[in-house]
Amino acid sequence: MLHKALPGFRDFYPPEFAVRSHITGVWREIAHRFGFEEYDGPPLEALELYVEKSGEEIVGQLYNFVDKGERAVALRPEMTPTLARRVAARAAGLRKPIRWFSVPQLFRYERTQRGRLREHFQWNVDILGEEAVAADAEVLAVALAALQALGLTGDDVVARYNDRRLLERLGLGAGGGADRLLATYLAIDKLTREPREVIRDRLVSVAGIGATVADAVLAIFQYRDLAELRLAFGKSESVLRELDRLEAYGAQLARLGFGAYTAFDPTIVRGLAYYTGTVFEIFDRRGELRAICGGGRYDNLLRNIGAVSLPAVGFGMGDVVLGELLAERGLLPAHRPRADYYLIAVTEAERPVLLQVAGALRARGAAVLYGLKHANVGKQFKDADARGAREVLVFGPEELAAGQVVHRVMGTGEERRTPLSEWLGGGA
Amino acid sequence: MLHKALPGFRDFYPPEFAVRSHITGVWREIAHRFGFEEYDGPPLEALELYVEKSGEEIVGQLYNFVDKGERAVALRPEMTPTLARRVAARAAGLRKPIRWFSVPQLFRYERTQRGRLREHFQWNVDILGEEAVAADAEVLAVALAALQALGLTGDDVVARYNDRRLLERLGLGAGGGADRLLATYLAIDKLTREPREVIRDRLVSVAGIGATVADAVLAIFQYRDLAELRLAFGKSESVLRELDRLEAYGAQLARLGFGAYTAFDPTIVRGLAYYTGTVFEIFDRRGELRAICGGGRYDNLLRNIGAVSLPAVGFGMGDVVLGELLAERGLLPAHRPRADYYLIAVTEAERPVLLQVAGALRARGAAVLYGLKHANVGKQFKDADARGAREVLVFGPEELAAGQVVHRVMGTGEERRTPLSEWLGGGA
Repeated sequence: MLHKALPGFRDFYPPEFAVRSHITGVWREIAHRFGFEEYDGPPLEALELYVEKSGEEIVGQLYNFVDKGERAVALRPEMTPTLARRVAARAAGLRKPIRWFSVPQLFRYERTQRGRLREHFQWNVDILGEEAVAADAEVLAVALAALQALGLTGDDVVARYNDRRLLERLGLGAGGGADRLLATYLAIDKLTREPREVIRDRLVSVAGIGATVADAVLAIFQYRDLAELRLAFGKSESVLRELDRLEAYGAQLARLGFGAYTAFDPTIVRGLAYYTGTVFEIFDRRGELRAICGGGRYDNLLRNIGAVSLPAVGFGMGDVVLGELLAERGLLPAHRPRADYYLIAVTEAERPVLLQVAGALRARGAAVLYGLKHANVGKQFKDADARGAREVLVFGPEELAAGQVVHRVMGTGEERRTPLSEWLGGGA
Repeated sequence: MLHKALPGFRDFYPPEFAVRSHITGVWREIAHRFGFEEYDGPPLEALELYVEKSGEEIVGQLYNFVDKGERAVALRPEMTPTLARRVAARAAGLRKPIRWFSVPQLFRYERTQRGRLREHFQWNVDILGEEAVAADAEVLAVALAALQALGLTGDDVVARYNDRRLLERLGLGAGGGADRLLATYLAIDKLTREPREVIRDRLVSVAGIGATVADAVLAIFQYRDLAELRLAFGKSESVLRELDRLEAYGAQLARLGFGAYTAFDPTIVRGLAYYTGTVFEIFDRRGELRAICGGGRYDNLLRNIGAVSLPAVGFGMGDVVLGELLAERGLLPAHRPRADYYLIAVTEAERPVLLQVAGALRARGAAVLYGLKHANVGKQFKDADARGAREVLVFGPEELAAGQVVHRVMGTGEERRTPLSEWLGGGA
């Protein structure tokens, strides 16, 4: 019978793998450029690790099961709990700030949204053990540097940033507990997507705050930049401190070269409970796709999960939305097989010498192909072409008798006789 | 509470990740050198995919469960069924022979062996659509080229090869069906590890062949090389044909540069049902470790699983035994953090310029670090050293006023004043 991949799982044939490899390759290269070191953890973890961070509700979205050892386990839906677990286990021995990144495959089982993928690859970058805003700027900068290296400009994408501490100083969640504050964030998170009245109703009914306070909260979002906020709330010392920090954040990002990629946006709050400071999301400027990347500061998570107190800031960037954007902008490299050399034997008698040259060229680092079954020369040339060979060596009986090999450059058609020793020996 | 990884799963901290990355990096580099293209599939597949290939017995070793959509699924224990599924789905559109490789993480749940890992990474290389022995040689050559690139010589490792077709021509399994033949292989597979009498008993009791035939089968294994076999069985045309093929296999491997790494061994049969021709296993010469790699020809598997008839040859090489061998031979690169530049600000006032230089250097491809929180110069130098910086730039108020930056090479201690513009501008 003909089998299929499970729903929501991708098969990566060589062309699709090349796209994934291109994206993850740039992620790794840029992470190293910013001095981050790569780690990885198990794709399967104890279920409690996720429940402890996100509550029982998360279980509905997980690929979880009971294993043969009666353990409740789950395919990892995100990397941060694994990171917290790992750092906690070795916190004392690790140099702070810790600068780590990872490129895990993550899994979600969402019953209700059948069309969606159930796995994706996500670039996770985190700085742990530093509360200075320079860490926040560095983390957003590495995300933007990767997008830039992939060919996206500040006209293509924008990182909108905010700080939950600013919103709190401005009065968000005043008089309520953490639950009400989170409900308020969740309502605000939809501010740009839903009518103001819907948000207001939600603030009153779900977040449970009075209508007057709801209006006051919404009034905050009439101010669209830091200068306006400074004018309106400049009398509050605590608000000023937050504005100063956000201004430093923006200025550092500009100095690092990403001014054209960044903008303050008070409506960015992120829907997750654990953020405690700066938050950001990166979008395509045309607003056609879901967010490409989201992150921020989460100073309490490691204490909650890992029992070690370390301030932290980081992000996750998935390969799916990003891949769509790159494809749409024509920024994905064309997939074509490639080889440096294709070796052709005119008769089977030349195979032994051909194999020796293949071995010698490969030992020098060249990508080398040859036909595994004998075929006529024309057919072998056709195969060389189809497999993207740049140069061809033809081993014929007369030429070999004279100690020579025919060398042909496929692009130009240029062809000459060369000494066999040149291909067997040291220098190419 | 302090969480732990599940039993049998590895946490890859940066030093362990560096080892994995070194090994998988060489695998990928060598595969490309041999003209193989990378693919990947889902880590989770339908359970029936494995049952169909290996029978119900396999289920006892799998990480399998029923998902929320009531599907029987399993974390992939091997890559070949996924490969067969994929190739079958697109067989007509793929250029033959197909030369593919993959580096999947694989999973087994073995209840009884608690100390063992339940996951590992495995390099899978396959040629599909070619029955010539050159394909068999090419596949073993790519495995050996990777071991060579990792620093292992023919004194460290050896690939022992054989051909099941030869054993059959020599009379193995004569008069019995496929089941008896497999039982015979399974008995022979232990020939070098268990006393001859035990093997003989097993041939009689498990494979169900008579005592006389068992002795005849065991007599085959007194011949240790192809020349001896040729003398003993040279009258049989069909044996000669197999001996010729195995000799061509060895000769091609020698031409490709791996003569010192290979040896014929009639006791190599591999324990798996699906091999139909050449089989090989790579061992450390000292015989201290389990096999590093195993593979061979499996001409019927794609027809059985994928309903498409394509001869195939391939292997799997895991990262665990190989990693142990490399560590033991001192062939793993030392893990040390590295950076090209570490930028030091004498006072916070220099941070803006420092960030600009960081951005400029990174845009040129350099790996750049700097302190995220202000600290004294000595402490920053210490951090630069701990993080493996090769060069340091010091931004001081007097130097900047003169448009200069102090440049220090950490290895030599050499230090000089350089124009700031040199670091901000085009050429480094």
